[in-house]
Amino acid sequence: MTALTALPAWQHMLAEANRLKSIDLRGAFAADPDRAKRYSLDACGIFLDYSKNRIDDAALAALYELARATGVEQRRAAMLAGEAINATEGRAVLHTALRAPQHADIRVDGVNVVPQVHAVLERMNAFAESVRSGAWQGFDGRTITDVVNIGIGGSDLGPYMVCEALKDFATPQLGMHFVSTVDGWQLAHVLDKLDPATTLFIVASKTFTTQETLSNARAARAWLVAAAGDERAVARHFVAVSTNAEAVAAFGIDLANMFGFWNWVGGRYSLWSAIGLPILMAIGPAQFRALLDGAQAMDAHFASAPLDKNLPVTLALLGVFYINGMGASTQLISPYNQPLHRLPAYLQQLDMESNGKSVRLDGAAVDYHTGGVIWGEPGINAQHAYYQLLHQGTELVPIDFIAALQNPRSLPGHNLILLANFLAQSEALMRGKNAAEVSRELQAQGLDDAQIASLLPHKVFTGNRPSNTLLLQRLDPATLGSLIALYEHKVFVQGVVWGVNSFDQWGVELGKQLAKTIESELQGDAPFGDHDGSTLQLMQRVREALRRGQ
Amino acid sequence: MTALTALPAWQHMLAEANRLKSIDLRGAFAADPDRAKRYSLDACGIFLDYSKNRIDDAALAALYELARATGVEQRRAAMLAGEAINATEGRAVLHTALRAPQHADIRVDGVNVVPQVHAVLERMNAFAESVRSGAWQGFDGRTITDVVNIGIGGSDLGPYMVCEALKDFATPQLGMHFVSTVDGWQLAHVLDKLDPATTLFIVASKTFTTQETLSNARAARAWLVAAAGDERAVARHFVAVSTNAEAVAAFGIDLANMFGFWNWVGGRYSLWSAIGLPILMAIGPAQFRALLDGAQAMDAHFASAPLDKNLPVTLALLGVFYINGMGASTQLISPYNQPLHRLPAYLQQLDMESNGKSVRLDGAAVDYHTGGVIWGEPGINAQHAYYQLLHQGTELVPIDFIAALQNPRSLPGHNLILLANFLAQSEALMRGKNAAEVSRELQAQGLDDAQIASLLPHKVFTGNRPSNTLLLQRLDPATLGSLIALYEHKVFVQGVVWGVNSFDQWGVELGKQLAKTIESELQGDAPFGDHDGSTLQLMQRVREALRRGQ
Repeated sequence: MTALTALPAWQHMLAEANRLKSIDLRGAFAADPDRAKRYSLDACGIFLDYSKNRIDDAALAALYELARATGVEQRRAAMLAGEAINATEGRAVLHTALRAPQHADIRVDGVNVVPQVHAVLERMNAFAESVRSGAWQGFDGRTITDVVNIGIGGSDLGPYMVCEALKDFATPQLGMHFVSTVDGWQLAHVLDKLDPATTLFIVASKTFTTQETLSNARAARAWLVAAAGDERAVARHFVAVSTNAEAVAAFGIDLANMFGFWNWVGGRYSLWSAIGLPILMAIGPAQFRALLDGAQAMDAHFASAPLDKNLPVTLALLGVFYINGMGASTQLISPYNQPLHRLPAYLQQLDMESNGKSVRLDGAAVDYHTGGVIWGEPGINAQHAYYQLLHQGTELVPIDFIAALQNPRSLPGHNLILLANFLAQSEALMRGKNAAEVSRELQAQGLDDAQIASLLPHKVFTGNRPSNTLLLQRLDPATLGSLIALYEHKVFVQGVVWGVNSFDQWGVELGKQLAKTIESELQGDAPFGDHDGSTLQLMQRVREALRRGQ
Repeated sequence: MTALTALPAWQHMLAEANRLKSIDLRGAFAADPDRAKRYSLDACGIFLDYSKNRIDDAALAALYELARATGVEQRRAAMLAGEAINATEGRAVLHTALRAPQHADIRVDGVNVVPQVHAVLERMNAFAESVRSGAWQGFDGRTITDVVNIGIGGSDLGPYMVCEALKDFATPQLGMHFVSTVDGWQLAHVLDKLDPATTLFIVASKTFTTQETLSNARAARAWLVAAAGDERAVARHFVAVSTNAEAVAAFGIDLANMFGFWNWVGGRYSLWSAIGLPILMAIGPAQFRALLDGAQAMDAHFASAPLDKNLPVTLALLGVFYINGMGASTQLISPYNQPLHRLPAYLQQLDMESNGKSVRLDGAAVDYHTGGVIWGEPGINAQHAYYQLLHQGTELVPIDFIAALQNPRSLPGHNLILLANFLAQSEALMRGKNAAEVSRELQAQGLDDAQIASLLPHKVFTGNRPSNTLLLQRLDPATLGSLIALYEHKVFVQGVVWGVNSFDQWGVELGKQLAKTIESELQGDAPFGDHDGSTLQLMQRVREALRRGQ
């Protein structure tokens, strides 16, 4: 047994889950008029109704007890204080410092990092304003019309997700584009539409060595230089989010336009740092500050609210309840607002890279499940795609339904339909439709007994399928900041309960190593090295295809 | 026990899965130089290497035996012959007829449907050519520059996925746009960029009553009429994919431009029908025919190849092995070519809406798992996002790696890196990295014993994580057609093994019903009807927000 499964609180939680696996939620609501109110929380413009979960007071008490027993409060304090809680890399974890107000004092190795954060922010603001105002000119004197962010993983998912979510807050003067993959198709199609003289590239790679990013950056550089006829144009059309000054300068970027961040900012927690530069360019300094402030408000809530009134803690514990107590393998994120269409992909990295671990901080193997698969598409589309499985499939899929109450850019009548569907799905999943109800319905349609008997089982819904509902007051920078920070802290709390390091990602190393080897071996004619028979036969086919040319 | 779990072949399969749960794949490759070759198949331009799965000859024999015992061959024949295998709706299932050659004879209720299919195709071709050639004119005499497809679910996912995948085969003269959600934000942002005088809308709704689609169609119609100043312009700017002539005519669409399909075409199998009109407009009749022919080639392979040489059957059985034999809850689709970025979303509907069921054809409840969660993003991006969990998490996630050998629109050097990564990931997942290997590596880096002891467990990869590799000769219409048909038939075979009806979707009904009720109750001031306390409190908040206005 690990330190976790040996805990009485753990065993207690499992017993509660076992007891509630077949809870009758419809009955629970009927029996308790206060259930919805009691199982709701409201903070930072986000109203969370978690009453449609398989919970009751005793189960929640067990879950909060588990949080206390696993030291969630102590670990929270340690993270916020800048302790090196990322133990395998010996680093602090301080994305919260990135949104701290100017007067805050957060120390790493005795040094207050807040002034550094604000100094970079001010440089970013000045740069963004010069482009947004048209003062910044390209190689032929024209202003910038398009910004291309070249980055991958955390240097892409966060900025892209937020730029989409806040499109209505962005200046229409700047087209924002995101290039991430090393399938050159993506960059080629983006450049097809752009004019080199009015395009600015942000190359986002902390080390300035990320292979995908640098491949694209070099191709973009060649495209620009071919048009400008002069390598000096690079300094007018490229900026870097990096800390590798030497490589950035060698590329031709003016170091005045290099924006750095710190080793206590993980890639998947970096949109608040210089990695957020494309966001800042799109929405401007004031709205970017609002985004940071929204996140900071959630930080304050997370830091101070009692566990049982704490949004991130509550969401985290519900997730643990389903994964460990009821065998759920996945968590569906179902945003109904189209601007949030990339939120699930963003949360995939945030959650799965953080808690997709099998080893506890002390090196012991876990004897329980950790993070599950995060997935999802915009909810209204998903109703016409995979909701069938949610309603009648054999998998337990807990769901976060997310929608904004205000939707200023919608069309007349549309928002009513959108929100009616949003509400109806969680109701349908929870209440289901039993055989008696189906039978009555089919009788009313005039079917005879034989027809009813054969169709009925297919039209029954078991119900008791759990979900959270998150109502955003508005989809604006502040509320979005709060929402993202809510999930960041949720992931953190789950990592604490599971006892894993949520801030390393050693699991991405092996594939990178082998890719380097294979890349080198694919070139030329030398016999391949030591690989399994499958990889060898595939390498042979790839080599032949590469030799035949594109 | 159900008819399935009572089968000796089922019990045999479970025993084999249990035996192979902890197979040492690295050892299996070392012991058997022919493993890769034996566990590979090649058909229709798709090379499938399935040797990196937890299988051996005995396990495969058990799986193919299960397929025979559950009547896969008989059901396949019944589907292809047009029998009414969609029993709960009393319908044939004949998406294969949509790609049948002109001389084929496929009968539904005694009538050969192939001439009808080709008649609609010819009308679609003529219409598409008139727009593509510029002969078709908008209300002020200009030619069409942009096509907006308004549809949702199967009327959106397939056409959008294919248009993205085949962008390099599309005419650059026509911008293709897809509007699906009833968040009006999406339509508003698409229309922002377009000129009514040169925009053509395809309204894709079989019944012409789909609420999301008709809401958007009406908004688009108002936008067009406001610009044209004349309702008669509707006939020049709207066409319909529908069978409801009355509603289509009432909308103002010329019935000559209504393209229909048949009740033996399910929404998620409909991109080959008139629902594929946006594809046809983008790539033209010849390439659309190539897409159909590619699918038809896979149909022929599926119909005739022995089970153990049959691509769809083999993929299907491997999926059953993991879901039912080893407890997998999800299937990851990992395409490495960026044009395939919507393939996972497309396959979500295809698979989850088909097999997310809990009731057998005879109405008996299943006592085993059916379809799992399908998910994925382009693989190279995912390496920087959620692959951590694939390598070191606690979930078993079987993976389909997909890439094309030829990539004509890539950039110099990019494809080598893309394919090297593609190959390295399946190798890394299969082989892992054991403690001895990690220890040697850390020693070589100069770490001392204490450092190695503390870091080592975090850097171990258990390996034996299964995947299929699908190498496409090229990403062209024919191969894409084959690939989609491969997954269609895979889903069919799994449905047969599980004994469910893969062609109905009763699970989407309840949410629709409740949404209608809620939509009606949200308007006005009347007290709400009968809902649980949670839905009531959320409805109250939504009503207040709607009353305050957008």
